[in-house]
Amino acid sequence: MNVIQGGRARPCRTVAFDREQNAVLLIEQRLLPHEFKIVATKNFRDTAKAITTMVVRGAGAIGATAAYGLAQGALAFPGADLKKFSAHVETVYQTLKAARPTAVDPVNAMNDVRKVMALGETVMEQQVLALAAAEEFASEDVRHCREIGAHGARLIRNGMKILTHCNAGWLAFVDIGTATAPMYAAQTQGKKFHVFCDETRPRSQGSTLTAWELAQQKISHQIIADNAAGHLMQRGEIDLVIVGSDRVLGRTGEVANKIGTYTKAVLAARHKIPFYVAIPLSTIDWNLKRGLDIPIEEREASEVLGAWGINSVKKREYVRVANPTSGARNPGFDVTPPELITGLITPWGVLKPKDLWKKRQALGHAG
Amino acid sequence: MNVIQGGRARPCRTVAFDREQNAVLLIEQRLLPHEFKIVATKNFRDTAKAITTMVVRGAGAIGATAAYGLAQGALAFPGADLKKFSAHVETVYQTLKAARPTAVDPVNAMNDVRKVMALGETVMEQQVLALAAAEEFASEDVRHCREIGAHGARLIRNGMKILTHCNAGWLAFVDIGTATAPMYAAQTQGKKFHVFCDETRPRSQGSTLTAWELAQQKISHQIIADNAAGHLMQRGEIDLVIVGSDRVLGRTGEVANKIGTYTKAVLAARHKIPFYVAIPLSTIDWNLKRGLDIPIEEREASEVLGAWGINSVKKREYVRVANPTSGARNPGFDVTPPELITGLITPWGVLKPKDLWKKRQALGHAG
Repeated sequence: MNVIQGGRARPCRTVAFDREQNAVLLIEQRLLPHEFKIVATKNFRDTAKAITTMVVRGAGAIGATAAYGLAQGALAFPGADLKKFSAHVETVYQTLKAARPTAVDPVNAMNDVRKVMALGETVMEQQVLALAAAEEFASEDVRHCREIGAHGARLIRNGMKILTHCNAGWLAFVDIGTATAPMYAAQTQGKKFHVFCDETRPRSQGSTLTAWELAQQKISHQIIADNAAGHLMQRGEIDLVIVGSDRVLGRTGEVANKIGTYTKAVLAARHKIPFYVAIPLSTIDWNLKRGLDIPIEEREASEVLGAWGINSVKKREYVRVANPTSGARNPGFDVTPPELITGLITPWGVLKPKDLWKKRQALGHAG
Repeated sequence: MNVIQGGRARPCRTVAFDREQNAVLLIEQRLLPHEFKIVATKNFRDTAKAITTMVVRGAGAIGATAAYGLAQGALAFPGADLKKFSAHVETVYQTLKAARPTAVDPVNAMNDVRKVMALGETVMEQQVLALAAAEEFASEDVRHCREIGAHGARLIRNGMKILTHCNAGWLAFVDIGTATAPMYAAQTQGKKFHVFCDETRPRSQGSTLTAWELAQQKISHQIIADNAAGHLMQRGEIDLVIVGSDRVLGRTGEVANKIGTYTKAVLAARHKIPFYVAIPLSTIDWNLKRGLDIPIEEREASEVLGAWGINSVKKREYVRVANPTSGARNPGFDVTPPELITGLITPWGVLKPKDLWKKRQALGHAG
């Protein structure tokens, strides 16, 4: 997508690879929305560190970063000894895997790359294949997001007001994003619409990342407090809700996503406003049998008790907002039941949550 | 209620009067929750300024402040010329009225005081009556809150988890508060319970004022992001919701309150969790015919785009959280329809919202 620099929009991906420098190029997301900077990781350990320290975050984005990191590590190997090369690649793999232990995307991405590498018979062949496979992983991520955009853009009509929660934008993927994909596609089609970004306390990804993305893309938008969506729906000021997801249960259609998503779904159902969840196929969990078993991470109280921002002298700073002798509960995610979801926007098309399993079987996957 | 100082709890009112100094004593609420300080206004102009600059806020609290301010102004008059005295009192009245032009409580409170003053035949008699009437206004505020507490405490059972939104605590009244009154009364009865305070973005009155109050009173509590209530309800972690109100329509039972209240009512109804609104009689608007006509104040965007808190060097500071090129919508209040409200906790007892009008007629007031 675009990034505005010096008043001009130039295209940019969240994650990319520089062959000449053998470096992974990443948007330094911790500086957003207050500063835009691309960082180049010099070696696979740097790349792992960028994942650990949240320079890059978001399912698709860290998957591609790990895939590129594996290729980067493989390419840095000197010589032609296949045995030593394999041992080195195993070290690279384990280092990148350990960078964000709870995430599944880096592991899936690196397994894809290794499968392709195994087709090579020499170190050099495997090195070439590693990079090709990493590039293919990133391209597939973009393709899936583009397909989500094509299917989802049909839901957006001229003049609509759309609500989104948290950030399921291009910053969380290689490009385009999921919840934002239909918006970017509709914009390309010349449609005019307005987006309300939920602030998304306690980490404010809506007011920082999503608002930044939409501003770069020149999409009309405003930030609202998480408390305000109900009132706006009541007054007829929201026509459509699109969010992303961290995990969708293929068997039940339940949707785990950032805390507060469930609340917006309940409100949308009450006001008969369509509520859509945009996801790539990699977000679907085909195994878990019920949403109640999705682990809900309890995060640091400090997130709820204060806020990070830019102070009057332009420095990034944390301020404690809450009463200093009070504690907090801070569940990071919630689970929305399928009956509150109008449809899932997937690369397969727009589906009812309950139809995911049938669709998979119809496409000939194992049941 | 109590304020903890030097490890000890001592009783305190939000608003009080010092006869010796002829001063209104106010908790400097702008410093809370980070510093506790009582300020004494030296004259009626100081008192008006304290209302304007939000040293004191909340319906009951500013009503009592204006009543005391009028008495303070009257008492400062030297001499016995009744004509000059009346002109002086008119100046005091207009000054205090202009301190917060949209609020109705200061005007009602001062009209009460003036009615009583008119019974005096000399300047000195009127001065004495002014202070007596102001004290009576403050006492009635406390009495009403106590009655709310007595009725509401019956709804609280041992082990309950209670959600509240914004601050309808003793800081908003002279003492005890409305939404908090049942909690304080239940505590006195020896009941054990836990309170979740919604942060209440964008101004965070829940995490600052309500959490501070409950901490002073040693009531078990935690702050949650406004996004988290739905998840906690889903997991059976909330048994009861009690909030306050800025205006209840006597004809329809609709409740205007801080933005986000409606959302919590919708969630509570879905989960069959009792949802109560605690109000003094002065909050009831007997004239307005529909909630849609309640003006919803659109507040400054900066509230949504950042946060005030204490930084690492203990200074109060505003940080901009949001993307710097994005704007915000910031409706300050919303309206909850009566069908989502289990009951109103009033000095008259616990009533269905729709029964307010009948109750008023039954008590012999004009229909």
